[in-house]
Amino acid sequence: MKTTAVIMAGGRGERFWPKSRNSRPKQFLSLTSDGQTMIQKTVNRLRSLVDAEDIYIVTNSAYIGLVKEQLPEIPEENILAEPCARNTAPCIAFASAVISRKYDDAVMLVLPSDHLIGFEDMYISTLKKAIEVSLIGKNLVTIGITPNYPETGYGYINFGSESGNAYAVDRFVEKPDLATAKEYLASGKYLWNSGMFVWKISSIMADLKEFMPDIYEGALRIGEAFGTDAYNEVLEREFTAFTSESIDFGIMEKASDIYTIPGSFGWDDVGNWLAVERINEVDDAKNYIEGNVISVGSERTTICGGKRLIAAVGVEDIIIVDTDDAVLVCSKNSTQDVKKVIAKLKEDGISDLV
Amino acid sequence: MKTTAVIMAGGRGERFWPKSRNSRPKQFLSLTSDGQTMIQKTVNRLRSLVDAEDIYIVTNSAYIGLVKEQLPEIPEENILAEPCARNTAPCIAFASAVISRKYDDAVMLVLPSDHLIGFEDMYISTLKKAIEVSLIGKNLVTIGITPNYPETGYGYINFGSESGNAYAVDRFVEKPDLATAKEYLASGKYLWNSGMFVWKISSIMADLKEFMPDIYEGALRIGEAFGTDAYNEVLEREFTAFTSESIDFGIMEKASDIYTIPGSFGWDDVGNWLAVERINEVDDAKNYIEGNVISVGSERTTICGGKRLIAAVGVEDIIIVDTDDAVLVCSKNSTQDVKKVIAKLKEDGISDLV
Repeated sequence: MKTTAVIMAGGRGERFWPKSRNSRPKQFLSLTSDGQTMIQKTVNRLRSLVDAEDIYIVTNSAYIGLVKEQLPEIPEENILAEPCARNTAPCIAFASAVISRKYDDAVMLVLPSDHLIGFEDMYISTLKKAIEVSLIGKNLVTIGITPNYPETGYGYINFGSESGNAYAVDRFVEKPDLATAKEYLASGKYLWNSGMFVWKISSIMADLKEFMPDIYEGALRIGEAFGTDAYNEVLEREFTAFTSESIDFGIMEKASDIYTIPGSFGWDDVGNWLAVERINEVDDAKNYIEGNVISVGSERTTICGGKRLIAAVGVEDIIIVDTDDAVLVCSKNSTQDVKKVIAKLKEDGISDLV
Repeated sequence: MKTTAVIMAGGRGERFWPKSRNSRPKQFLSLTSDGQTMIQKTVNRLRSLVDAEDIYIVTNSAYIGLVKEQLPEIPEENILAEPCARNTAPCIAFASAVISRKYDDAVMLVLPSDHLIGFEDMYISTLKKAIEVSLIGKNLVTIGITPNYPETGYGYINFGSESGNAYAVDRFVEKPDLATAKEYLASGKYLWNSGMFVWKISSIMADLKEFMPDIYEGALRIGEAFGTDAYNEVLEREFTAFTSESIDFGIMEKASDIYTIPGSFGWDDVGNWLAVERINEVDDAKNYIEGNVISVGSERTTICGGKRLIAAVGVEDIIIVDTDDAVLVCSKNSTQDVKKVIAKLKEDGISDLV
């Protein structure tokens, strides 16, 4: 059976402002020294497993140009444009219906476009195990990340009995508080929910039909119109009518035959500016410095500059990001609050900086 | 007797980088919300005491254009161009010799161009007292600032017996360590050395002749050439030959008849970026913010921005200064280290940012 991949690239990545903008979200940025963007890295690490013509990119219609520019190897008809944001369930249903037009059935890898993987061989090996498990019955497989600290910013997967290379999923749990996260970690029965899924198209379509029939029907109508003159009109009408819902809540928490494969491949969700020092090399003073920078006695500081000089004198534990029209200076304790800057800009009607 | 003023404006103000540059030192910058530059404020606050045609500006030849632009009321012949930096003694001797050409004798106020005065009426009243004292014999008067905390960055004046409105100066002392500064403060017998002087030209010339004869003779030759075709050549030759020396060390510590008038007029030497929050109003979170800035939860932070957006998120006790080609992010504990940035730029041969 063919293996296809659906890369979800509709996200906004507000927490990487001012580098990320409405016009260029995080997945289209390079945050590593190799110069590749997040989505380019996502596609490149898949190429040993999936042919380019079987890789689908689902993104907002505004980003079609960026996808074409950054991923010229992906066939144009594989770039699926969402007219609006409706979370992951409609996104996956849309892609499934389109791919169904090409293959009677196929394995589908569903992958975020803006995560990093440290150990690509292990990643591929994990996906291969997941593909094997997905071929059995109508199994839905989610890749769980073996946690190494009690993170409170992720959802967790509580797994039960072993079955071949996979574990049966007992339940999905929301982001825990710190005490609960510590219990999860100590129990050895919880994995981080990475948002990576593997299943046959026939399996996910069956579950969509059962648990999200409106989205299933609408996706089928989009699939039928695909390649015809009516496509854009049907897509617009059906997609905007979808309820916004995650695949986790809409399917994974309700369906049976849910399995997880634990992965330990140096996964990083690159959730905010703190990630930059994790995913790049730091100097002896634990600074990550890029661009035209003079540091005098600064420590544990992340500086993403460009041509303009940034002088950092005696600062500690802060993040400095410079762009042509805006500079961010942020405490490492406040990276979540970068969103508030965007909210303020929107409130003030300053859309060109958002 | 006429009162004249000599404003010393040759300084570099490296500690206000990146706003201050070789091409525009601190005295030519506005650091207050009224938009006036430091030297404009210096001249303006004198105008009730000294006529414009009796105000002399001594500056580096590179800054003549800036002086003309910022002080159009000062006659061109009163702008005295030093060919090189030689500290305050040659500067004062030069100005004294030139003014001697115009007046047989006159009172001379010697004032830095880059300090701020909070209470201008008290300042004028203090200068008037100093003028009276300077008219007696060949008194040299220095304005001492009543200290309100044990500053270790200034020299101190140790004064003795009262004599009219003034106190006899016992000795000048260098920047003390903190314990010594505390003793000075507690003793009630020490003032900060502000670098402001009042004397008759005849008095300072007599002392220059006695204690710094080479500079005295050279200054006389410059004065003789003033207004002739030979002036530039004589100035260049004589001035570059002067020893670099302060008036404090060269004259004040050696001459007799030295008096001080204590001043309490909200003096600030605006020595580094920390001054900005002192000399301007701060918000409820103790931030000073100027320009296009969004602050989210920042405290005790000084932000000098311009058109480009600066977003400060959760930062504390730092200083952010943005210019077209460079941005400084500096801990409040490290403002003295801004000079190291300039040293690094010079070392790297990046002269356009210095």
